[in-house]
Amino acid sequence: MHILITGAAGMIGRKLSERLAKDRALNGKPIDKMTLTDVVAPAAPAGFSGKVDARVDDLPAPGIAEKLIAGRPDVIFHLAGVVSGEAELDFEKGYRVNLESIQHLLEAVRKTGDNYHPKFVFTSSIAVYGAPFPPAIYDEFHLTPLTSYGTQKAMGELLLADYTRKGFLDGVGIRLPTICVRPGKPNKAASGFFSNIIREPLAGMEAVLPVKDSVVHTHATPRSAVGFLIHGAGLTREQLGPRVNLAMPGVCCTVGEQIEALRRIAGDKVVARIRREPDEMIIRIVSGWSERIDAKRAVALGFKAENSFDEIVRIHIEDELGGKIAA
Amino acid sequence: MHILITGAAGMIGRKLSERLAKDRALNGKPIDKMTLTDVVAPAAPAGFSGKVDARVDDLPAPGIAEKLIAGRPDVIFHLAGVVSGEAELDFEKGYRVNLESIQHLLEAVRKTGDNYHPKFVFTSSIAVYGAPFPPAIYDEFHLTPLTSYGTQKAMGELLLADYTRKGFLDGVGIRLPTICVRPGKPNKAASGFFSNIIREPLAGMEAVLPVKDSVVHTHATPRSAVGFLIHGAGLTREQLGPRVNLAMPGVCCTVGEQIEALRRIAGDKVVARIRREPDEMIIRIVSGWSERIDAKRAVALGFKAENSFDEIVRIHIEDELGGKIAA
Repeated sequence: MHILITGAAGMIGRKLSERLAKDRALNGKPIDKMTLTDVVAPAAPAGFSGKVDARVDDLPAPGIAEKLIAGRPDVIFHLAGVVSGEAELDFEKGYRVNLESIQHLLEAVRKTGDNYHPKFVFTSSIAVYGAPFPPAIYDEFHLTPLTSYGTQKAMGELLLADYTRKGFLDGVGIRLPTICVRPGKPNKAASGFFSNIIREPLAGMEAVLPVKDSVVHTHATPRSAVGFLIHGAGLTREQLGPRVNLAMPGVCCTVGEQIEALRRIAGDKVVARIRREPDEMIIRIVSGWSERIDAKRAVALGFKAENSFDEIVRIHIEDELGGKIAA
Repeated sequence: MHILITGAAGMIGRKLSERLAKDRALNGKPIDKMTLTDVVAPAAPAGFSGKVDARVDDLPAPGIAEKLIAGRPDVIFHLAGVVSGEAELDFEKGYRVNLESIQHLLEAVRKTGDNYHPKFVFTSSIAVYGAPFPPAIYDEFHLTPLTSYGTQKAMGELLLADYTRKGFLDGVGIRLPTICVRPGKPNKAASGFFSNIIREPLAGMEAVLPVKDSVVHTHATPRSAVGFLIHGAGLTREQLGPRVNLAMPGVCCTVGEQIEALRRIAGDKVVARIRREPDEMIIRIVSGWSERIDAKRAVALGFKAENSFDEIVRIHIEDELGGKIAA
């Protein structure tokens, strides 16, 4: 089996290629080859005995999608994209990278014309939803994105469903919730604090909480995100039916509940590293975000997230900190 | 005021330009000029004293959208498109005409860069919805089209909302219900019978009814469709808010109720011209269509359709038959 991962140098892309290298198989079939592409060189996953083609590509540039599809990957994980903030600042770049990349990949598959029929796993996002929201976002709730990023993801979902319906490939769109705890350094994303207030104190550093403890949000770990993608790749056309784009489950809780989970696991001293410093701009942005996702279909189809925020904290300590907390 | 109509040679396009010629004004401002474009020559509307530029254009071809926008129309009615059946048979043509046309028009507006800010009225369709449906389609119901045509319309809606949100123009997307009674000859569209069973008997001809009398559907007249577009052009950004795409109201009734309305207005002899001849293929296609549209927001925003199917029949007799029924 040959697997193509776009956006392979990103956080999820890296974790996905590492997990596949460790599993050595996908959908019960051994993995012989991974093609990894991104705008910066993706790292070859450690310990993988198969062939790795790690490439630097400008995915939406003419001919690139065709080149990637010429290798006839059996499963395509399309993760490449520019993030929400960048797509909002650079309108043309956002549409080019987030919309044209998937258009070109789907067209390259369609145009092979030789019964090539890959599985196509697309990472969408809860940014496809736009306020005002119901108390919990149900599977039939409409997509009215309030960012160009969300618009581009929603358009990609529509294309994916149509190419799947027409029988050109088997698509599945995975609407990722907020990934928490996101490893690495604090960044300036408005959603950064959800991870910062856990990751930084556990590493002995101070973190700023810019919103009230009562803010509600839905989270899943990077480990779960990778699990969603792999589980999605294993679903059949019959299991998915025509509605191939799915909201993923997650742990829905308040910021206060996040902090109490951290306290139970790491103690008062660690929690004391969270500094409350309200930021009116972030408060306003976050107030427009979805709070609770009721991912009934995904759960029925076997997608699994964590069961509690305690579990999210423990997985971060296990996967990123080698089990150790900074005293 | 300068008005641009794409798809101006089509049934709705023609009726819209005639109505505007008669009104001589839109949103309270006199109309000086109409630019009418289509793939076949649009007719200049009778009795219009302003300037008419009737053009034959391949709208998605390079440079055409820029040319049309160079005239800085104050209001753009974008009606051009290939119909559902054609978009399904010719995948590339469907995306080219139904998606690229709106992309090019929106981009041409954005790239003027001189504070040009037109009103952009887009005709979408209830084809953006896909079965299974709730008992009535509510405004927050998601778009899961089951045709390429519906996919292209849904993608156009998303673009329109994003370009509006970014302040490049003021968009409004009008999801037209089934237009009934459609004038002209019977065609092979699966939905044709909804109109055929009224229009043909009224003209002294036989009509075939291929489905059961219990089939439920939502209808609006061509006159209402034109009214929706004109009303949409008059709504402000504040009235619309961020959700600029709207399902339109219509008369929801069974085929049996359509026939009883025809009987009340035209008598038994006319109704006797309907021949029941079940067609399994059409029965299957129609069973996947939305039945009832609960267009709450559109009604609250002042969009008006007919109140009964009797009214639909009467308007057809008035607008298309000069008030006369074939005995």
